[in-house]
Amino acid sequence: MQAIAIRSGKLVFEDNVPAPTTKPDEVLVRVTQAGICETDLQLVAGYMDFTGILGHEFVGFAQSGKFSGQRVVGEINCNCRNCDRCKAGLGNHCANRSVVGIFGHDGAFAQTIAVPEKNLHQVHDNVSDDEAVFVEPLAAAFQITDQVKITDDQRLLILGDGRLAFMCAIVLKLTGAPLTVVGKHSGKLDRFNALGAQTVRLGAEVAPESFDVVVDCTGSPSGLPLAMQLVRPRGTIVMKTTVAASHDVSLAPIVINEINLVGSRCGPFDQAIAAIENGNVQLDSLITHRFQLRNALAAFESAKQGDAFKVVFEISNSGESHG
Amino acid sequence: MQAIAIRSGKLVFEDNVPAPTTKPDEVLVRVTQAGICETDLQLVAGYMDFTGILGHEFVGFAQSGKFSGQRVVGEINCNCRNCDRCKAGLGNHCANRSVVGIFGHDGAFAQTIAVPEKNLHQVHDNVSDDEAVFVEPLAAAFQITDQVKITDDQRLLILGDGRLAFMCAIVLKLTGAPLTVVGKHSGKLDRFNALGAQTVRLGAEVAPESFDVVVDCTGSPSGLPLAMQLVRPRGTIVMKTTVAASHDVSLAPIVINEINLVGSRCGPFDQAIAAIENGNVQLDSLITHRFQLRNALAAFESAKQGDAFKVVFEISNSGESHG
Repeated sequence: MQAIAIRSGKLVFEDNVPAPTTKPDEVLVRVTQAGICETDLQLVAGYMDFTGILGHEFVGFAQSGKFSGQRVVGEINCNCRNCDRCKAGLGNHCANRSVVGIFGHDGAFAQTIAVPEKNLHQVHDNVSDDEAVFVEPLAAAFQITDQVKITDDQRLLILGDGRLAFMCAIVLKLTGAPLTVVGKHSGKLDRFNALGAQTVRLGAEVAPESFDVVVDCTGSPSGLPLAMQLVRPRGTIVMKTTVAASHDVSLAPIVINEINLVGSRCGPFDQAIAAIENGNVQLDSLITHRFQLRNALAAFESAKQGDAFKVVFEISNSGESHG
Repeated sequence: MQAIAIRSGKLVFEDNVPAPTTKPDEVLVRVTQAGICETDLQLVAGYMDFTGILGHEFVGFAQSGKFSGQRVVGEINCNCRNCDRCKAGLGNHCANRSVVGIFGHDGAFAQTIAVPEKNLHQVHDNVSDDEAVFVEPLAAAFQITDQVKITDDQRLLILGDGRLAFMCAIVLKLTGAPLTVVGKHSGKLDRFNALGAQTVRLGAEVAPESFDVVVDCTGSPSGLPLAMQLVRPRGTIVMKTTVAASHDVSLAPIVINEINLVGSRCGPFDQAIAAIENGNVQLDSLITHRFQLRNALAAFESAKQGDAFKVVFEISNSGESHG
């Protein structure tokens, strides 16, 4: 089959990879569409020393098991279900986990992927592939409102204007609370304006210590110091993006202002799917670039550019069907 | 009157300072005893560029107002009661606040101090001065259990074996949850053993990612990385001490393990006083050194030494009474 992988530290397109084999709890999914995420760009840059097939945002058709023939999306944490954390309901933090397309598990930039059946969620016909491919990052955004109680009288701020920032904006708008977004790119900020958020170019004046909840989606070491400056005393900062580099930062404001800093990673697929199915969120026109798997390098280059919003691989028609 | 101050960046004993004048909301308190805290040592080292009379842990007799003649302790944040934060119940975070002995307000290493009357709390006769002088740091420790819900099935860890760490240990023991303390000094750790905590010398093996709540009382940039290593995924780190220097630290574990980092500063005096009055906490034999104000330099030297636990100034008899 065709796939995009990191081998010996390099991004490569492979035309003749063996189809994956399944472990007892896994089923094969024929991938129809898969999205490039910031984490993929970081993995290519060396994050996690990942080797294998990339891709963790996908939609496709289950080839076996209880979802056989159904269109599905998949959670990315493959946990053991046996360790103390799994038993405590913290499966996403299983000490023995692999993570689809990120850590120890081949991913979805391929014609077929093997996924634990329990990770799969069916998506109904009223959800398009163009929408379903956003379930994973949208779920990650819903994790914020699972972790932090937000009421409509709170002042919310997102730092960053990228893809994940937009998913977070979609979810935070559902709270009814006023939302401000600080970003670098006026073109990208326009999307947030259209969503009803107030937008501010980075560097323009924002009242310090004036937001109840600040979500850092910058992926940059400069995000946290700015967040600490803009969050109110006793407010909450949600760290939504990892920064590979060390922070050289004074954390004294955390103590002095009694700030609550919350790390936030993967989220509830059921909430994301329901929000799409019920029409509560609009994911139209977010895909700006579509590629075949064989154009891997061009696709990744596009994903780094300022004019790109979401870059996806259209896979089902890009080669022989697995079966 | 006599006082200990920082003038032009230097710690000095002053034998003939004018007694403080009071603002309309303030009363004079004749100080009987005042304790040296880690923050005092930092202020002497240049933290906050403080100039004025030091000292913020004290007990004394109110000279006027509704507590006149009564023995009182005092909260240290002097707020405006008019700003949005004060009106929102966040008086300790008032944007216009001064802080007794720390920021813009003369402190308690003096025969008399001026304090807003609303900051004062009466202490009853069954509480000794040796106990009352601990109300301020004990209240700061109670802030932890006000901010973080702790149940007796959680595994608690304190990093640090100093004075504030001990106050935190006293409060955390009240939860009934098992408590471990990691510290550098075997002599200091003995006190935590006597309290019923398990103690571990820094550097000895501790199971990683195994504590539900970790309280960092190290005052050192090395505290947070160790805390991130020892807290479980979705666990809570309470930052109880400020670090003046920048952290050069990767905060990726905060996101990956979805850690909750909570800054914690001043706390509820009423809870601390009630715990002492009711005999729920034991503060015996914590004072290892007692000085007169005129021996300021020796007292501060003592407070830096490993064999010191609490160093206090005995003030009421150290000079002429103010009246």
